[in-house]
Amino acid sequence: MNRLDSRDANFTQQLDALLAWEGVSDAAVQTRVLDIIAAVRAEGDAAVVRLSNQFDQLSAVSMADLSVSPERLKQAYDSLPTAEREALTQAAERIRRYHAHQVQESWQYTEADGTVLGQQVTPLDRVGIYVPGGKASYPSSVLMNALPAKVAGVAEVIMVVPTPRGEVNELVFAAAHLAEVDRVFTLGGAQAVAALAYGTESVPRVDKIVGPGNIYVATAKRQVFGQVGIDMIAGPSEILIYCDGQTDPDWIAMDLFSQAEHDELAQSLLIAHDAAYLDAMEASIARLLPTLEREAIARVSLRDRGALILVADEAEALALINRIAPEHLELSVADPQALLPAIRHAGAIFMGRHTPEALGDYCAGPNHVLPTSGTARFSSPLGVYDFQKRSSLIGCSPQGASTLAAVASVLARGEGLTAHARSAEYRLLPNK
Amino acid sequence: MNRLDSRDANFTQQLDALLAWEGVSDAAVQTRVLDIIAAVRAEGDAAVVRLSNQFDQLSAVSMADLSVSPERLKQAYDSLPTAEREALTQAAERIRRYHAHQVQESWQYTEADGTVLGQQVTPLDRVGIYVPGGKASYPSSVLMNALPAKVAGVAEVIMVVPTPRGEVNELVFAAAHLAEVDRVFTLGGAQAVAALAYGTESVPRVDKIVGPGNIYVATAKRQVFGQVGIDMIAGPSEILIYCDGQTDPDWIAMDLFSQAEHDELAQSLLIAHDAAYLDAMEASIARLLPTLEREAIARVSLRDRGALILVADEAEALALINRIAPEHLELSVADPQALLPAIRHAGAIFMGRHTPEALGDYCAGPNHVLPTSGTARFSSPLGVYDFQKRSSLIGCSPQGASTLAAVASVLARGEGLTAHARSAEYRLLPNK
Repeated sequence: MNRLDSRDANFTQQLDALLAWEGVSDAAVQTRVLDIIAAVRAEGDAAVVRLSNQFDQLSAVSMADLSVSPERLKQAYDSLPTAEREALTQAAERIRRYHAHQVQESWQYTEADGTVLGQQVTPLDRVGIYVPGGKASYPSSVLMNALPAKVAGVAEVIMVVPTPRGEVNELVFAAAHLAEVDRVFTLGGAQAVAALAYGTESVPRVDKIVGPGNIYVATAKRQVFGQVGIDMIAGPSEILIYCDGQTDPDWIAMDLFSQAEHDELAQSLLIAHDAAYLDAMEASIARLLPTLEREAIARVSLRDRGALILVADEAEALALINRIAPEHLELSVADPQALLPAIRHAGAIFMGRHTPEALGDYCAGPNHVLPTSGTARFSSPLGVYDFQKRSSLIGCSPQGASTLAAVASVLARGEGLTAHARSAEYRLLPNK
Repeated sequence: MNRLDSRDANFTQQLDALLAWEGVSDAAVQTRVLDIIAAVRAEGDAAVVRLSNQFDQLSAVSMADLSVSPERLKQAYDSLPTAEREALTQAAERIRRYHAHQVQESWQYTEADGTVLGQQVTPLDRVGIYVPGGKASYPSSVLMNALPAKVAGVAEVIMVVPTPRGEVNELVFAAAHLAEVDRVFTLGGAQAVAALAYGTESVPRVDKIVGPGNIYVATAKRQVFGQVGIDMIAGPSEILIYCDGQTDPDWIAMDLFSQAEHDELAQSLLIAHDAAYLDAMEASIARLLPTLEREAIARVSLRDRGALILVADEAEALALINRIAPEHLELSVADPQALLPAIRHAGAIFMGRHTPEALGDYCAGPNHVLPTSGTARFSSPLGVYDFQKRSSLIGCSPQGASTLAAVASVLARGEGLTAHARSAEYRLLPNK
């Protein structure tokens, strides 16, 4: 595993190289995606069926073959082993409870002259959730994407999940039942995104599409942005752990592995200001890595993208955290709350030795859909606020309108927009 | 002006045709924009200077020629006519006051077993504001884009505004001074977006870019999305007025004109359930249109994109409003508050006969940057929330961690992520 030292002359370059990641979609991908979107817009269901057969190696005759009934979802849920069904139910309950704190309410206030200002908050009507198929298809992701929409009051949640070669993930269906997803289609790729964005005879047009996907899905989402809302375009998952050197190195090693086992591009970083602790970490990693079921993936991820980083002190650690703006930040220290005011950018902050990322991934309550690749500089975890929107409210009293009209008139004439000015001036009171 | 009637058999098709608008960026524009971004990333300032000279017909030698000093901004402000300076100052004060209501605060709560959950809210570090050059360059837009960022606590606000053929808009500079914009560069086009997104020797890299622009700017923003945050991609401005037939038709005509005078693509729609009132409107429009300074623009806009729409009753009017999801909705009725619960989608709602859109455009307080082209279905006015972001907080007590670890372990093993499970299991208490 890489060892970096902030005292090295080329530390910044080494760090930049380690962090570099760009989701490239070349011209060929862009062209294919534009073609797929055009086909779905022009032909609707027929194109969706044809493209799904082609890309997912299916033999669907019509959209009926690509639709999943509520009964089928319930059957998947009922067939779950009891322990799993109970764990999923407990997770859903905690996720609902946490997200209820995020609900934003409408507000209004009245000024002295009777003018009312405010903001009306409403849920989106209909939302699409993209769930990846195959191995990266996680029931926890269904809960994390669908439940905030439900808490926001979205009337209809539509899920799409591809079934390459007909492979169905029963856990995903079960989670869709638990999260009360309204409709499920076994679609994937750019064709699923296009169908949700523009609607077809069978797939209703949604107002926003959320959820991760491969480069075709990401490119399609970028393309339909504006027609519908989209969430962030996700990069590889990452964790940054800052440890004061007092946590059992085996615990930290396993926390790093829990990120590294996702895929070869996942990034696991540890910051400490104690070289001896980093030595102990290396020993723990060397000992525990061979015991992992997903050892091969974790080994590549740690070798190519992981690092143990030595810094001089806490101030340097905090500067590095803000520089990296990690998706997951674990503060494995005695008093994590004391560090919060200094942390400007992070998707989720796991505080203390007893809070590994894995608890947040499944059941602590906060969302596990988080801004990756430094985008925590400007974006937030997926939340109820992503499924609500606002309308400004302006209601002028005759007196308030007259006062504002005098100001607006001057500014509108300054901008050469005289119809604006005259529209305002009609509301001047005669005694002004 | 078009007259539509909801009883017509082909009303829906007519309405769809009227509303249709798509900001197309063809392959040629995409390629040019990708080339410009690549040049700015590779060459920094040198590319920015060269491209600005080329596209804006300038003869800048270095970035010093494309930078505006704080003294220059203050000089523009000090040179304003008194009435304009006072109006701008009053507008800024009202915008600040309204937006202060939008500030979101951090929150935490503690569960029975001592586990802490919450969300930390922080401002973005640095934001870029794109202000169009030439005729569509409005000082009010500088206030509406910069002040929410300032209220959010953004440390550094960078403004770019092109100066085609060296034309400077003094009002825009004055507004930048008033809004306490931190740095101003006279840059425009895709090169300005690229410089803000990636940074150059002179232009600092920002975390988010907001503000409208032409097709090159919009395409560049879509392209750099992910590297930085962006706001919505704006279409032509629109107004939808719903009138109960009791407002002076001249007032409503001028309110429609205030939208139509923006540009030929602007859209002005009126809904009423009184055919005689629509007749009176036609007469007012015919009489007042020739008195407009921007008559030529307004006439084309009303002819191509405007309509007077007759509906059967209030229920039909409300359904149409939600179908259109207008940027600006004027409720020129006796009791607009009574309609609010039925309105699901609108950028801003202007309530009552004394609240024309023009007051909101300049000085009522709410933002005039609003979702266009039906995007109010899923997006909101520009606000303080666009310049804040959130970090989830999770701090487990040893007891809380143990309880959650039992759940996470089951779910992680269900997903085949055994390092996740083992990371959680280290936090199981021995007595469990």
